[in-house]
Amino acid sequence: MRILYHIPLSPFARKVRLVLSEKRLPFELKTEKVWERRSEFLEANPAGTVPMLVEENGLSIPDSGVICEYLEEAYPDTPLMGRTLAERVEVRRLVAWFDGKFNLEVTRNLYGEKFLKRLVGRGNPDAGALRAGYANIRYHLDYIGWLAETRKWLAGPNLSLADFAAASHLSTLDYIGDLDWTLSAATKDWYARMKSRPCFRSLLNDRIVGTEPPDHYSDLDF
Amino acid sequence: MRILYHIPLSPFARKVRLVLSEKRLPFELKTEKVWERRSEFLEANPAGTVPMLVEENGLSIPDSGVICEYLEEAYPDTPLMGRTLAERVEVRRLVAWFDGKFNLEVTRNLYGEKFLKRLVGRGNPDAGALRAGYANIRYHLDYIGWLAETRKWLAGPNLSLADFAAASHLSTLDYIGDLDWTLSAATKDWYARMKSRPCFRSLLNDRIVGTEPPDHYSDLDF
Repeated sequence: MRILYHIPLSPFARKVRLVLSEKRLPFELKTEKVWERRSEFLEANPAGTVPMLVEENGLSIPDSGVICEYLEEAYPDTPLMGRTLAERVEVRRLVAWFDGKFNLEVTRNLYGEKFLKRLVGRGNPDAGALRAGYANIRYHLDYIGWLAETRKWLAGPNLSLADFAAASHLSTLDYIGDLDWTLSAATKDWYARMKSRPCFRSLLNDRIVGTEPPDHYSDLDF
Repeated sequence: MRILYHIPLSPFARKVRLVLSEKRLPFELKTEKVWERRSEFLEANPAGTVPMLVEENGLSIPDSGVICEYLEEAYPDTPLMGRTLAERVEVRRLVAWFDGKFNLEVTRNLYGEKFLKRLVGRGNPDAGALRAGYANIRYHLDYIGWLAETRKWLAGPNLSLADFAAASHLSTLDYIGDLDWTLSAATKDWYARMKSRPCFRSLLNDRIVGTEPPDHYSDLDF
């Protein structure tokens, strides 16, 4: 069986889970405590990061960006990266936006400070980081809302990896109660469409011991 | 004419310059003072980052990762990403290694602290960051040396984007005098091969006012 190594609530692993499910590729999810630096894991992925995908033929694929490019090439039946060169640029631009800029300005400051720090025993959240995260999320939600209002899906007329990247970060923040859905109606409408897709079910069923999500987290009609 | 926006010594822009030259795609290099947040530039690239490539047909492509994927698809004649799925995973894994891990652990701590901070007027280098950078570079040079000794090129039998990504970071650090080539003979041998390629010439001719490179920087027999 195909294995996806992850840590709880990792938005990068969530993006890969969504893509695997959307492409109907079965997989088993395994938690890897990357901070323990297990030697067998480091051999397959010297960077020691999750997500890492291991295919049934033994091929190890680290890094969510590398995994998603691989899945698109290996299983092209459900294309998620656009067709024309310009479409593909736009999909990848937005994936870089969410996994780079959004992650740095929002996810790391909220999920990183409130959840990851505790997970690896690195103390309390930094107040300045939290403030920055809550300030930055506002203009990011506006940007997602603007994309959702002017296009059918975030990168254009078709559902793409850009939608999965954005939805993964938002779902992680939603789980820890850091998303105020009243901030952007257009973002909420788009996210409701994402949430109701079959591929999203497994994310909505996630429960982490000691960290309960808010009631609306798994509610399709939130 | 195709335009590549960059800032001096940016390893990410250098990677794109190498790829464009290796694929024999002419381009004009323009410096973009990203910290001035020019509105016309932000319109084409809301993230406000360099490198950004603008094609003759007007297509704007931000982010060095997105640019390199685009160039591979648009101009496949000189393939730089591997052929089989496994080769392509290995090329992209190493690109993520150099542009992610190496950048974070080495480039940002040295080029970022010593050059970029001054460029944007953000004060003096942080001593702790410099110490971390000099400590980290040792094991990274070992890793590059190990790859170069066990393979013809860093990702396998063929020259690839992985070589260009690694060489870009090293060339930036070499320019600011932060590379001790006695640390890894295998890395030095591989870099000498990279340096002597025609595509490398323009990088070796770079000169930044007020920051002279060491004598060996442009010497092919260093």
